[in-house]
Amino acid sequence: MTPFRISFCCSNTDPAPWLAGLRAALPQANVSVWQPGDALADYAVVWAPPQQFFDEQPQLKGIFNIGAGVDALLKLRLPPQATLVRLEDAGMAVQMAEYVSQAVIRHFRDLETYAEDVRNGHWTTYPPRQRSNFPVGVMGLGALGARVAQALAHFEFSVNGWSRSIKALDGVRGFAGAAQFNDFLASSRVLVNLLPLTPDTANILNRDTLSRLQPGGYVINVARGAHLVDDDLLALIHSGHLAGALLDVFRTEPLPSAHPFWREPQITITPHTSARTLRDDSIAQIVGKLDALQRGHSVGGIVDPLRGY
Amino acid sequence: MTPFRISFCCSNTDPAPWLAGLRAALPQANVSVWQPGDALADYAVVWAPPQQFFDEQPQLKGIFNIGAGVDALLKLRLPPQATLVRLEDAGMAVQMAEYVSQAVIRHFRDLETYAEDVRNGHWTTYPPRQRSNFPVGVMGLGALGARVAQALAHFEFSVNGWSRSIKALDGVRGFAGAAQFNDFLASSRVLVNLLPLTPDTANILNRDTLSRLQPGGYVINVARGAHLVDDDLLALIHSGHLAGALLDVFRTEPLPSAHPFWREPQITITPHTSARTLRDDSIAQIVGKLDALQRGHSVGGIVDPLRGY
Repeated sequence: MTPFRISFCCSNTDPAPWLAGLRAALPQANVSVWQPGDALADYAVVWAPPQQFFDEQPQLKGIFNIGAGVDALLKLRLPPQATLVRLEDAGMAVQMAEYVSQAVIRHFRDLETYAEDVRNGHWTTYPPRQRSNFPVGVMGLGALGARVAQALAHFEFSVNGWSRSIKALDGVRGFAGAAQFNDFLASSRVLVNLLPLTPDTANILNRDTLSRLQPGGYVINVARGAHLVDDDLLALIHSGHLAGALLDVFRTEPLPSAHPFWREPQITITPHTSARTLRDDSIAQIVGKLDALQRGHSVGGIVDPLRGY
Repeated sequence: MTPFRISFCCSNTDPAPWLAGLRAALPQANVSVWQPGDALADYAVVWAPPQQFFDEQPQLKGIFNIGAGVDALLKLRLPPQATLVRLEDAGMAVQMAEYVSQAVIRHFRDLETYAEDVRNGHWTTYPPRQRSNFPVGVMGLGALGARVAQALAHFEFSVNGWSRSIKALDGVRGFAGAAQFNDFLASSRVLVNLLPLTPDTANILNRDTLSRLQPGGYVINVARGAHLVDDDLLALIHSGHLAGALLDVFRTEPLPSAHPFWREPQITITPHTSARTLRDDSIAQIVGKLDALQRGHSVGGIVDPLRGY
C-alpha cells in the first residue's frame, strides 16, 4: 500500500496506546494526534471531535468512529465524500449481553431487594417470581441487540424483539416496524432499549409507549439518554405502573447532581459503562476495514446519514 | 396403579399447595402431611424431616427429597431398603446459572463498585478489566454445575471444570480427581463451588486450596456452608490474596447476626436464594419418578449413601 496519513481526534481518550496500536498494525501509515493547522489526512479516527476538525480536514476519505452510536457525529457538518464507519461489536456485544443479563436477572430474582435487606442485617426470603410472567422485549436487533436477545433466551426468558424489518433469531419472537410496535410493547414486561438514536427514535420511551408495557414493567436503557422522556418515566414509576428502571445513558453525561434520577429509589443508574470501547478489538477492526476500503472492498458498519445509523 | 400412601414431611414449607399438586397428579394416592403416630406410608416427600419420621416409617419404599443436596438427610438413620431420590434440575439449574452468571459479571465488570460510587453521588469510570485475566473454575459438574459452566462459556469467559471423573462439556476445560485439583485451582481466578457435601468435600475451601487460586481470586459458594472454612476465607481476604467472595450458604442458616461475614465489606451474602425449589417443576419430577419406580423402571437422581450424593 502507498503511504497515507491518519489523524486521531478523540475526546476523553488517552491517545498514546491507540497511536502505538495503529502504528504497529499499519507501519506504512503516518498516524498522529490531530492539532489545529495539521497537514491534511486521508483517514480519521474520531470520538466526539469538534466541528473545527472537519472544517480543517474537508478531504478525508474515511472516518472511523470508535463507538457504535454515531448520533453525535451526525450533528456535525461532515465532508460529504467521506465514508463514515462505526464500530460493530468489537467486544461490545458480549459486554452488552453481560450488562443486560445481569440487570434482568437481578430484577427477576429480587437480588437488589435481598442486597438491601442484607445491608440492614435482615435474612429474608421472598416467593420466587414466575419466569412465564417476565417476557422481555428488546428494541433494536443489530449486533448488540441480537446478542442481548440471545443471552436472555439462553436463560429461558420469553424474549420479544422489535426492529425496523423482521429479524429471525432463535428463541426470539420477532416484531417489526410501527405496525407491530404496540403489540410488541403489550407483550413485554421488561423493556431493553438498544436502538440507534435518530430523529425517528428520539423520545421513543415516553408516557404513551411505556404505559403499554405490562403492569410492573421495568425499563433498561443502554442506548442513548435522548430516547427517554425523563419526566414520563418518573411519572409512571410514581403511579405504580412501572416497577423501576436501570439507566446507563442520560441526556447530559455525567448526570447532573440535581437530576431526580440520582434520588429515585426505583431507578438504578450506572455511569455509561454498559459496553466500553475495547482498544485492542477496536484497533483490529478499524485496521481491517481501512485495509478493505483501500483495496476498494466493501465493509460492514458504513453509516447511512439519511437513516441515521 | 394400586392405591398407595404418600407421607409429606417438609420443614419450612407450606404443605397445602404441595398436597394439592400431588393429589391432582396422583388421584389413586392417599397423600397427607405426616403427624406422629400416622399410618404407614409407601413413599415419603421430605425436606429436613426429624429422625422420628423415619423411626416411625421403617417400611418406606421410596424417599423423595425436595432439594438437590441430601447431606443433611444422610446424617439420619434411614430405612435401608428405601430408594432415596434427590431432585435433579427441576428448574434449579437455570436459576443457578442466573445467580452465578450475574455474580461473575458484576465482579468482572466492577458493577458493585459503580453501585457504591452512585450511592455516594459519584459518576466514575474505571478501566475495563481483561477477560483473558478472568478464568473461572467450576467445582462440581452435575446438572447444576454443567449448566453454570455453559452459561459462563456463553459470555466468553475461560471456564475450567473440576469433577470426580472427567466430563466433556463444550467450551469447558476439564480437570478430574485429586491428581488435577491443584492444577485446576492454579488455572482459576474465580472459583464457583457446586459440589455435593460429603465427608470428602467438607472443608474443601480452606487456606491451602484457596491460596492456590490466582491473585485477586474471588470465591462464589452456592453449595453448602460446610464446604468453606470461614476463618480461612477471612484471613485470605485480609491478606489481600483474595479480592472477595459471594456466599449464599452458611454453616448455620440464617447466618447468626454476630458472624463476621455480615460486616466484611469484601463479602457479599445472600440468604440461600441461589436456586429455589420450584413447586410445580418439583411435583412433576417426583410424580414422574414415582410412577417409574412403581413400574420397576430406573430413575435419575438415586442417591448412593456411600458416595454421599
